[in-house]
Amino acid sequence: MAKSRPVAGPGSATIATIADEVGVSTATVSKVLNGRSDVAPETRARVEASLERHRYRRRPRRQPADLAQIDVVFHEFDSAWAMEIIRGVEAVTAPAKVDVILSQLGGAHRPPPQWLEGVLLRRPLGVLLVLCNLTEPQRQQLRRRSIPFVVVDTDSATSAAVPTVGSNNWNGGLMATRHLLELGHRRIAIISGPEDVLCSRARAAGFRFAHDEAGVPVDPELVRYGSFYLDAGYQHGLELLARPDRPTAIFAGSDLQAMGVLRAARQLGLDVPGDLSVIGYDNLPMTAWIGPALTTVNQPLRDMAGTATQMLLDLAQGNDLATSRIDFVTELVVRESTAPPRRH
Amino acid sequence: MAKSRPVAGPGSATIATIADEVGVSTATVSKVLNGRSDVAPETRARVEASLERHRYRRRPRRQPADLAQIDVVFHEFDSAWAMEIIRGVEAVTAPAKVDVILSQLGGAHRPPPQWLEGVLLRRPLGVLLVLCNLTEPQRQQLRRRSIPFVVVDTDSATSAAVPTVGSNNWNGGLMATRHLLELGHRRIAIISGPEDVLCSRARAAGFRFAHDEAGVPVDPELVRYGSFYLDAGYQHGLELLARPDRPTAIFAGSDLQAMGVLRAARQLGLDVPGDLSVIGYDNLPMTAWIGPALTTVNQPLRDMAGTATQMLLDLAQGNDLATSRIDFVTELVVRESTAPPRRH
Repeated sequence: MAKSRPVAGPGSATIATIADEVGVSTATVSKVLNGRSDVAPETRARVEASLERHRYRRRPRRQPADLAQIDVVFHEFDSAWAMEIIRGVEAVTAPAKVDVILSQLGGAHRPPPQWLEGVLLRRPLGVLLVLCNLTEPQRQQLRRRSIPFVVVDTDSATSAAVPTVGSNNWNGGLMATRHLLELGHRRIAIISGPEDVLCSRARAAGFRFAHDEAGVPVDPELVRYGSFYLDAGYQHGLELLARPDRPTAIFAGSDLQAMGVLRAARQLGLDVPGDLSVIGYDNLPMTAWIGPALTTVNQPLRDMAGTATQMLLDLAQGNDLATSRIDFVTELVVRESTAPPRRH
Repeated sequence: MAKSRPVAGPGSATIATIADEVGVSTATVSKVLNGRSDVAPETRARVEASLERHRYRRRPRRQPADLAQIDVVFHEFDSAWAMEIIRGVEAVTAPAKVDVILSQLGGAHRPPPQWLEGVLLRRPLGVLLVLCNLTEPQRQQLRRRSIPFVVVDTDSATSAAVPTVGSNNWNGGLMATRHLLELGHRRIAIISGPEDVLCSRARAAGFRFAHDEAGVPVDPELVRYGSFYLDAGYQHGLELLARPDRPTAIFAGSDLQAMGVLRAARQLGLDVPGDLSVIGYDNLPMTAWIGPALTTVNQPLRDMAGTATQMLLDLAQGNDLATSRIDFVTELVVRESTAPPRRH
């Protein structure tokens, strides 16, 4: 029956229009909009389709200022990395008197359906996604309820329509590798993050580019991918350093991985930076304190999170964003863990 | 006028009773109960006094299961310590489908009035306080709205009526010091946490007790207090280690402080554990990875936070707690940073 009626201009439909078209009560349409679970799946699908066809948009909620909340969803939170993000969010939400509802997906990259139901019930000012993303239907459901969302550091190519704050990973890989090549290293290993995550491949691409630029071949045996955690750095570090043609430098995908590499080097009796140079990624606060203090790529996580949160609050107030994609600049911070290779 | 009427048994008063007694509308009493700001301070005070006199208790809110939230309030969150607490909370809230609203007090030990207003508006299932506490009037306001609260690791003597999860700090100080004395150390320094925090003084008391037990005098110059962060360990470490009669061992108040001490030792060219033994406190995950791996007192932060969260959810369901004060056992984890002192 939907096909028999002309669709008016986008946004002009009311709940009554939708109810009439689908042949259900307005209460049922409201239930679907509010994420209630007591609607038959088939009915829900027809209502959602009609909402989409009419590009129905609910008026933004006028939340009382003292009940303002945003949802912050982490792929996983379990490290100083996540803490930096939370601190960046809090720096913006605390003065704005906005509460933060924290969720984590236990390692998944897409929130489950129950998560979205909770969000639709609560109707937060907005949703901040950290290292995770929404499916297109999930995005549509949020847009329809006028709940904006912003992504921090995408795990994969995000459509340009999704507001995103990231950092220049390719450039980070390039600068770290250039530093090692300039010190005279010729056998350099990279342990990047997970191979299915775009930022890992972008850094590895920067690593290759620096080699090409310097006319130094890359040994494919020295290109590794792993999780961002300590253990991956430790395991790959042990393997790489046990090789007869071991690398003289390792560029790690995170500071935690780099700490794992340092541990492997200590275990094998190798001095850093005498026998091995190590570079981390992120510049977590502790990297200035460990021994040796870590040379690392500064990824300004706190600023990234703060900027993303501000974008979210701007969107929640109905303001347009000057730009929907902000990449922060990465910088190399040279400390004690890199030096020229020993002459053999 | 309050004095002219007899007060019925606790809990029997209704909003109408209170309104009648104070001489305001029932709407005004509701506003006070809901934490609304549009009530004159003097009227609010009279309503609160009447509510207290009648020991008025609101019926627990029947929150829809899919909107269940708890508030988690940190004294400050800015380190791996806080991350361990969050992970412990999340381990209980995620399967229970309870959302976590995160706040931090920027270093204060008491939440400000605006915080309480927000809580009364939201009416969470409960409030978890980490290293901070409520004033007695704040406690009364929560009790009156049937919002339970639990404290993790109190900063000062908490009344026995407040459900609390802590750990045995005196015992932690005792075991760490005994370990150093048994290794043969006789000049041992302690850098405890802030002196106005009970757990710091409890650990220092355990430190003294171990000395007394072994018949070894404590040099008051070697007893220090400072913040729990890296820099305090670094600064006290530099001072202690620059002394002509420098200690051969330092017991730090946190793992972060211990990392600061390690940094000071490296800077002064002292080998750990050859020239100096170092013990931390907390057993954060990274302490197993740094070089040297840290001997530390395991404070099971994740279990403590999980237990406190479970207590909160039990209270929210109207269940009684088997016990309102749980102290977790602390254990010494011996790794690489402690050894017998060098013979002179």
